[in-house]
Amino acid sequence: MPDVSSFTEIRYEVADRIATITLHRPERLNAFTLTMCQELVAAADAADADDDVRVVILTGEGRGFCAGADLEKGAATFDEDANREPGDDLGSIGGVARDWGGVVTLRFAALRKPLIAAINGVAVGVGATMTLPADVRIASEAARFGFVFARRGIVYDGAASWFLPRVVGVSQASEWVLTGRVFDSAEALAGRLVSRVVPAGELIPTARALAAEIAENTSGVSVALCRRLTWSMLDAPSPWEAHRIETAALAATGKGPDAAEGVMSFLEKRPAQFTARVAEWDHLVPDWPVPPADHRPPAE
Amino acid sequence: MPDVSSFTEIRYEVADRIATITLHRPERLNAFTLTMCQELVAAADAADADDDVRVVILTGEGRGFCAGADLEKGAATFDEDANREPGDDLGSIGGVARDWGGVVTLRFAALRKPLIAAINGVAVGVGATMTLPADVRIASEAARFGFVFARRGIVYDGAASWFLPRVVGVSQASEWVLTGRVFDSAEALAGRLVSRVVPAGELIPTARALAAEIAENTSGVSVALCRRLTWSMLDAPSPWEAHRIETAALAATGKGPDAAEGVMSFLEKRPAQFTARVAEWDHLVPDWPVPPADHRPPAE
Amino acid sequence: MPDVSSFTEIRYEVADRIATITLHRPERLNAFTLTMCQELVAAADAADADDDVRVVILTGEGRGFCAGADLEKGAATFDEDANREPGDDLGSIGGVARDWGGVVTLRFAALRKPLIAAINGVAVGVGATMTLPADVRIASEAARFGFVFARRGIVYDGAASWFLPRVVGVSQASEWVLTGRVFDSAEALAGRLVSRVVPAGELIPTARALAAEIAENTSGVSVALCRRLTWSMLDAPSPWEAHRIETAALAATGKGPDAAEGVMSFLEKRPAQFTARVAEWDHLVPDWPVPPADHRPPAE
Repeated sequence: MPDVSSFTEIRYEVADRIATITLHRPERLNAFTLTMCQELVAAADAADADDDVRVVILTGEGRGFCAGADLEKGAATFDEDANREPGDDLGSIGGVARDWGGVVTLRFAALRKPLIAAINGVAVGVGATMTLPADVRIASEAARFGFVFARRGIVYDGAASWFLPRVVGVSQASEWVLTGRVFDSAEALAGRLVSRVVPAGELIPTARALAAEIAENTSGVSVALCRRLTWSMLDAPSPWEAHRIETAALAATGKGPDAAEGVMSFLEKRPAQFTARVAEWDHLVPDWPVPPADHRPPAE
Repeated sequence: MPDVSSFTEIRYEVADRIATITLHRPERLNAFTLTMCQELVAAADAADADDDVRVVILTGEGRGFCAGADLEKGAATFDEDANREPGDDLGSIGGVARDWGGVVTLRFAALRKPLIAAINGVAVGVGATMTLPADVRIASEAARFGFVFARRGIVYDGAASWFLPRVVGVSQASEWVLTGRVFDSAEALAGRLVSRVVPAGELIPTARALAAEIAENTSGVSVALCRRLTWSMLDAPSPWEAHRIETAALAATGKGPDAAEGVMSFLEKRPAQFTARVAEWDHLVPDWPVPPADHRPPAE
Repeated sequence: MPDVSSFTEIRYEVADRIATITLHRPERLNAFTLTMCQELVAAADAADADDDVRVVILTGEGRGFCAGADLEKGAATFDEDANREPGDDLGSIGGVARDWGGVVTLRFAALRKPLIAAINGVAVGVGATMTLPADVRIASEAARFGFVFARRGIVYDGAASWFLPRVVGVSQASEWVLTGRVFDSAEALAGRLVSRVVPAGELIPTARALAAEIAENTSGVSVALCRRLTWSMLDAPSPWEAHRIETAALAATGKGPDAAEGVMSFLEKRPAQFTARVAEWDHLVPDWPVPPADHRPPAE
């Protein structure tokens, strides 16, 4: 995996406890590549490893957010054999190289920090699906969206057949995927793909204000555990499974420093100073059941 | 199963690559019967078997869409023993004849073509539940809806206890089912049961325009696979399952003729001419886990 | 478990076939305690055991609905060891006392009668999560909500990591839980946490009108079975499971007195008089899979 300092197709910056990941191939509307995929995974790893990072923002440089797969290989664009490159070891499933979009979305879903997608321009194909594991999606008025698989002769990527119906509901997902249409921010808002649409100049300030609301008021341990619970309990066999995990996690965190600080700062009407470190607590909420080894990326 | 040419309670017509199924007992507000059930299954089979059909529209003749079970047997309406007829072999579960509504909805959910419900009038009971596996539901201003089971002393039919909360959310489903109230198009739109309400005269044109948007722009193979993925991944144990199936399906379709045509037509800014046949590709996405033999209709 | 006649922190009243449960510690904004937890479970048991109760309303006395955990123990509020009391036997999971919030929400989810939450004031923490297994939530304009776990250094309680994303969708759940913000009725309505917001004086009348709509028009057996189906089918492995259970339940109820009365009263355009008793029919829809004995409360 590439190192943060050597990224070529994305930017990674940390300020005010917020990590900003910027897709950075503006001359190609930030079209998605193997390099970008690898750098996004490395950026997620960096954000998780850095206790000073409380929230992650994902956005794009220039006019586009991400135009989807780079089509420069023309008819062979989606032919896996034409796209393998030396060092491309993101793991395989059943002997087939993993879909790069799914490599990114599953990594984003496993983040221990909240992910806010600030969609500044065109977001189609994997450019749309990579935003689905974000906790919040906000868009510029200039953004456009498309789940265009059916117009390209392929299928869902980015594990979006799991994410999209859960994010926008099965009927809205079906209409967008089966038509493959490209739609604007207003339709995205009406269909609940994004929670807010703002003028272009207000997009990043809005995302940073939301990130600051989280960073300044919450326990990083609580946020990491709750985020994991929200995603993983979507597939729980019953609410008893949530009750089981919550019981254990409440008992453990309830004795911890952040619970004491959370209550006392509230009673004393002062800002809280949370000190617990995510790495010491995140075992309390398990990840999704571990798939066979063949599924896993080797170096995560 | 009846043949398309011998239908008596529905009409089945194909034009412009769109199959239109019309419930056709207008003098009874198209109330549901065993014959209608069998003909709907046969119509779905016909649509799936015909490569020239890209989209299916379901609507009703006359003032009603479907008034639900035919109540002409009065107090014995829902007594299974009073309703069995010679040749009524739709399969059984645990020795009990399968709910006819579920026979229809499970067949519709398994369609390889998108299903658009154009609800022209009253749609209550099974008349409402049969629309739930549609990908898009649009309604005339004259439509009325009701999940009236609790007012008839019975329970959900049409596997709607699975479909309805997924389509409209658990809280909206609960309010409609527990009151059993009949409600108008405006309430259906606000509650996201339908995505659009139009004047009566615009209903079929609106449905056909949406069908044409799909038929003219998309690969039938992509649509069939994505439709199956959307429905079946609602129950996936985790997004890793979606990633596993997408990886295999992307690798296969990515080498196929429709992926090449999809990219080249886009780059050349011309309409695409997709040629792949659904029957050769639909093994890439599995159906729901096969229930025991007792569950399955015999001749599908 | 306490008896209805001895409740000290809630009130339980039955009138017009509606049971009203009122959280009753107005001087503490009805903050949640062990006693309140035990009394809520006992009230649910009483409502289920009384055939004259058709619907349950949950509301709060005074300015608040429920301010969440009582913080009078300060920094030790969420430390389980500081909160165990003699006779506190609500069952345990893995040797840890069950989360009290989950004890209440799982009991509410298992109710055989519809539950309407009429949220009159502040509802934060467990005060918000206890409303999630309600079938309908309506709010006064004065209500305020907060899933504030991350601001207190703890995690989801009340099995809300399962309920909340199913009730409002994963993205809205994430934004509310990760910020921990307190929000007003308008935001609750926009985010579909409540279905209606009314002036304070109209809250109880609105809840009672909805309850009466159910009590006067529906079969209690149908309502009990449908309610159970709605909640439990959220986790079904596929719609075939719903079809299997519906087939059996339709065959049984279809031969019963309420189905005959439901059809005949409709045909005769008169109010129905349903007579079937819930206790004789509720075996038709199973509860969630039974967790290991360690999970279960002992005396329910």
